[in-house]
Amino acid sequence: MALISDKTVGRLSLYRRILQEVLGGTKEYLFSHELAQYAGVTAAQVRRDIMAIGYAGSPSRGYNIRELLASLDQFIDPAEKQYAVLVGVGNLGRAILSYFAQRRLKIAIQAAFDNDPAKVNRVINNCRCYHLSSLQQIVRENQITVGIISVPPEAAREVADEMVKAGIKGILNFAHVRLRLPRDVWVENIDMATALEKVSYFARQNLG
Amino acid sequence: MALISDKTVGRLSLYRRILQEVLGGTKEYLFSHELAQYAGVTAAQVRRDIMAIGYAGSPSRGYNIRELLASLDQFIDPAEKQYAVLVGVGNLGRAILSYFAQRRLKIAIQAAFDNDPAKVNRVINNCRCYHLSSLQQIVRENQITVGIISVPPEAAREVADEMVKAGIKGILNFAHVRLRLPRDVWVENIDMATALEKVSYFARQNLG
Repeated sequence: MALISDKTVGRLSLYRRILQEVLGGTKEYLFSHELAQYAGVTAAQVRRDIMAIGYAGSPSRGYNIRELLASLDQFIDPAEKQYAVLVGVGNLGRAILSYFAQRRLKIAIQAAFDNDPAKVNRVINNCRCYHLSSLQQIVRENQITVGIISVPPEAAREVADEMVKAGIKGILNFAHVRLRLPRDVWVENIDMATALEKVSYFARQNLG
Repeated sequence: MALISDKTVGRLSLYRRILQEVLGGTKEYLFSHELAQYAGVTAAQVRRDIMAIGYAGSPSRGYNIRELLASLDQFIDPAEKQYAVLVGVGNLGRAILSYFAQRRLKIAIQAAFDNDPAKVNRVINNCRCYHLSSLQQIVRENQITVGIISVPPEAAREVADEMVKAGIKGILNFAHVRLRLPRDVWVENIDMATALEKVSYFARQNLG
């Protein structure tokens, strides 16, 4: 299969979620323009993206939803369950743990880490919390590939370096710094405070 | 002041956070390349962005951190405290409430809404929860401009329409659908599940 871009993977994941949560169960077939409407893209974009994973609908009936979901699952999900670790079990970290525990994705958070003795060796939101000093060992032993960073910004880069040394290949970063990572480590940044500040800034402009 | 783009506003908000949380307090002056390093952009980009808000450093000493922070505050923050409402007090909604309550931004969540009778008229994570049917009234009476959506995707569009009718001009959307909004309403989407799926997809590719 050809290399599929960052943005395409994001859209395919969104299409799947829309099919599962909004359109799934309501009918058997759907057209690209229906999916496009919920995803906020053009119908041509939907067709190109779905073509890229080797699936095609019928011009007269559109996509068979069950088959399309199976193709999306095969593309997006790991063959076996994949595991992640989370570092930083503060307010945000706990929220992330409970959010993902509830969503039952094919990727699960297997262990959490913190350096606060009050959290270590406890089970927090269904996830065991270890001391940060055992990160390398646990990641290696369990061949964990994904790391989630929810520590304060001044600690984020050190945590990312530890993750990379342990063999982590993808990081979801909630800290407000950009990480510097080797080329073979993928990063996605989520910055909720910046997003809210942007929304409030433009809301004020739009009041005009 | 000239119109400032979406991306510039996002970067200015990030610069401020880096100054406050990482570099603040450590020294009096800093150069654009130092800030650039933490923000993951070029020094030229930092200089352009800061020039756009009408502040300039000295070529020999760089930016005065205190003055730069004051300029960023003036640009990013509302003159008076701005208020937001949140709709959807589930697991994610509660996490968002406690995250923002803790961060003490110049924008605060003033009221939360849900249609679950068990939540209505309670204070949840320091925020009073009302029935969804009073959204319009409370938004209007308090001249609230920002809405946060943390409901399941099938309900998100209806909630967004209600918000717009009430006069909301900016929406932070955590639901997995793209909202269709009038041109004078700004939206930022945060999709944590898609971000984690992307990270795990590319982590698998990088293992190869």
